[in-house]
Amino acid sequence: MNSPARVRRPSHGPGSLLEVAVGEFITRGYDATSMEDLSRAAGITKSSFYHHFAGKEALLRAALERALDGLFAVLDTPGARTGSPVARLRHIVHGQVEVLVRELPYVTLLLRVRGNTETERWALERRRTFDAHVAGLVREAVEAGEIRAGVDPALAARLLSGLVNSVVEWARPGRSASLPDDVARAAFEGILPAS
Amino acid sequence: MNSPARVRRPSHGPGSLLEVAVGEFITRGYDATSMEDLSRAAGITKSSFYHHFAGKEALLRAALERALDGLFAVLDTPGARTGSPVARLRHIVHGQVEVLVRELPYVTLLLRVRGNTETERWALERRRTFDAHVAGLVREAVEAGEIRAGVDPALAARLLSGLVNSVVEWARPGRSASLPDDVARAAFEGILPAS
Repeated sequence: MNSPARVRRPSHGPGSLLEVAVGEFITRGYDATSMEDLSRAAGITKSSFYHHFAGKEALLRAALERALDGLFAVLDTPGARTGSPVARLRHIVHGQVEVLVRELPYVTLLLRVRGNTETERWALERRRTFDAHVAGLVREAVEAGEIRAGVDPALAARLLSGLVNSVVEWARPGRSASLPDDVARAAFEGILPAS
Repeated sequence: MNSPARVRRPSHGPGSLLEVAVGEFITRGYDATSMEDLSRAAGITKSSFYHHFAGKEALLRAALERALDGLFAVLDTPGARTGSPVARLRHIVHGQVEVLVRELPYVTLLLRVRGNTETERWALERRRTFDAHVAGLVREAVEAGEIRAGVDPALAARLLSGLVNSVVEWARPGRSASLPDDVARAAFEGILPAS
């Protein structure tokens, strides 16, 4: 289907097309990106692109699924399901940062979603489910007396999510292997703990 | 200039036009918003709009200036200029959250800027100057032994900025008067401090 002159990259499975698309969505914004833009960026024809993905929204869905599946997988690990609420929270924060660094562009896209399409609303709903799980654990930790009395569980859950997610703004894959530990420590002991 | 039928709001000074424009920029994205969109949202003619602002970029600049002036004003308050590094940091975090809640749409817009135009690059540069000031204070606090040894000042400054700025995602003006204190406490004592 492709004339050789148009193929800039030797092979394009769905995975690498998704990667190209996510890069374009992040740079241009999802709404402003057309299938023409995506085909051009991938160096293939539009019809080749449609061979792998039904359209722009299918690409968005696949990208957001990848981020969300990674995050939800953390909740299924033994460390997130057993142990004290605080130990489980620490495990989850650690795992969240690992996923965030490993799936950086996909999570970056997920965090920019504002709910303009059905797929975006689905992703927001899944994010809310994740956050509600964490908020529930924070509440358990406060009730169990593991976390200082006076901490508002809802506020703490929001700040925790904000702290963790802010890492996408500057994290680089393959760098800062200690980041999951660093962020977990900051959440539990303070970003600026007194000496 | 306006036919009465087109004027939905009784009076439009530059301030309220700016407010309308910032709302549209946040909802549609700056790049996707036209002067037509802005005039329609404000309920005035395009030429009336141009009477107050030279164009879209002038509006963006005025909006970002408002956010940045608010943030930089915090650095000029006595509490940010005198006292121990940790006391100054705490004062600044507190003041940052106050500005963020007071100027919520303007700061929200500032935090979405990616550097696509000259005005956006100017705003990013000013943000970097602000962040560098805070990072310098964190370094001083670590060197003065006020903050636990082993805290990486550059990382701590990034996490601090991430924590504070994440508040725009869910803060509502006029609610949660204790938010500046809550965020400062979270930064220094942990979001989830042990009991």
